[in-house]
Amino acid sequence: MRIALVSVGDEILSGDTVNTNAAWLGEQMTERGVAVERVVVVPDRVADIAREVNEALAEYDAVVVTGGLGPTHDDLTMEGVAAAVGVPVEEHPDAVAWVEEHTDYEHADLVPGTTHLPKGARMLPNPAGVAPGAEIEGVYVLPGVPGEMEAMFERVADEFSGEPLFRRVVDVDEPESALLDRIAELREEFDVSVGSYPGDVVRVKIEGADETTVEEAANWFREKTVAP
Amino acid sequence: MRIALVSVGDEILSGDTVNTNAAWLGEQMTERGVAVERVVVVPDRVADIAREVNEALAEYDAVVVTGGLGPTHDDLTMEGVAAAVGVPVEEHPDAVAWVEEHTDYEHADLVPGTTHLPKGARMLPNPAGVAPGAEIEGVYVLPGVPGEMEAMFERVADEFSGEPLFRRVVDVDEPESALLDRIAELREEFDVSVGSYPGDVVRVKIEGADETTVEEAANWFREKTVAP
Repeated sequence: MRIALVSVGDEILSGDTVNTNAAWLGEQMTERGVAVERVVVVPDRVADIAREVNEALAEYDAVVVTGGLGPTHDDLTMEGVAAAVGVPVEEHPDAVAWVEEHTDYEHADLVPGTTHLPKGARMLPNPAGVAPGAEIEGVYVLPGVPGEMEAMFERVADEFSGEPLFRRVVDVDEPESALLDRIAELREEFDVSVGSYPGDVVRVKIEGADETTVEEAANWFREKTVAP
Repeated sequence: MRIALVSVGDEILSGDTVNTNAAWLGEQMTERGVAVERVVVVPDRVADIAREVNEALAEYDAVVVTGGLGPTHDDLTMEGVAAAVGVPVEEHPDAVAWVEEHTDYEHADLVPGTTHLPKGARMLPNPAGVAPGAEIEGVYVLPGVPGEMEAMFERVADEFSGEPLFRRVVDVDEPESALLDRIAELREEFDVSVGSYPGDVVRVKIEGADETTVEEAANWFREKTVAP
């Protein structure tokens, strides 16, 4: 399963907010063996949201959109997603019912639009807030507030699964450039993928579909390198 | 000036690394009156990097690419950028000279490829590391290690400028949904853009090109709302 994340919000583009939602979802997906192949941050504009979601939908198995839900003029995600899949937004009876049963709001008191979802969408309840999410044609629309996003994702997490990937990390106290031949040999000897990330030490990540192979590869590499 | 950021790295997609580089660059650009209109994170794959950079170049005034510089097999950014602008990568004499003068490395000791840049690029020295960056046709290629990226950006920061944007933030202790009419009135009365961000309080950001207008708008709004 290969997916894309679309994060909506001017505040992320301007650097006011760090995109921790994408990192959190990336971790969740990786644990489930799902590959996040693309993360895109777009402004609060219907056309940009629609274009990104539409393109991602054509290319990936699912798209997770976060942010831009709610009642204010800059909450445009539902409109953008609806445009991407070619339907209008309209009041969703499940959203109305859920808000009336599970929140302190009466439907009549809610700002118009709060219960509007793309026509034909499945409503995703918001266990930690008011504005509901939605799923339509493999596009999952979640809130931008991290606590709400995480709580809503937990309810649909089972819909994301793939081949589990096993990983071992070997930290090395040598210059990255000195490791090239050994990394090349590692990749030749074992059926694994290897990433190396320089910092205070060089962090070498070894991943693969077979746990024994990954373990053997990590042991082989560890024996040939200098530990910090 | 409207720009796009392209962040390269599997480790960002998988959530191992939070994309703080994009947030830092977003802040820097916003301060300079430059609009970041798009942030894309792509895997360590030449084709993905090339496609994103190529598309962004067609649409924006400049593109800043971070990550994937260096000597290992997963450092593919220079190749991707070169493909995006239709040139080969080749050894760059300025990069060779700079490495020999400013680092502890002799050129002969460097891993082949470290001084290879897209043909015709301007070399951007790395004041905090070894691998040089590059600029070609408005595509700026910077390292992924934050300290190196920031030091390299400082040297080209003057090349990014736009209309300054003034901003005031008003925190409000009312539900976001209760503010809608007042936000609508604010947007009608003053030539400003308004963003509202719910959290413990609702943070309302008021921005515009004229500082006096933004100040007046913020005062008007502050008087009409409940402070925390």
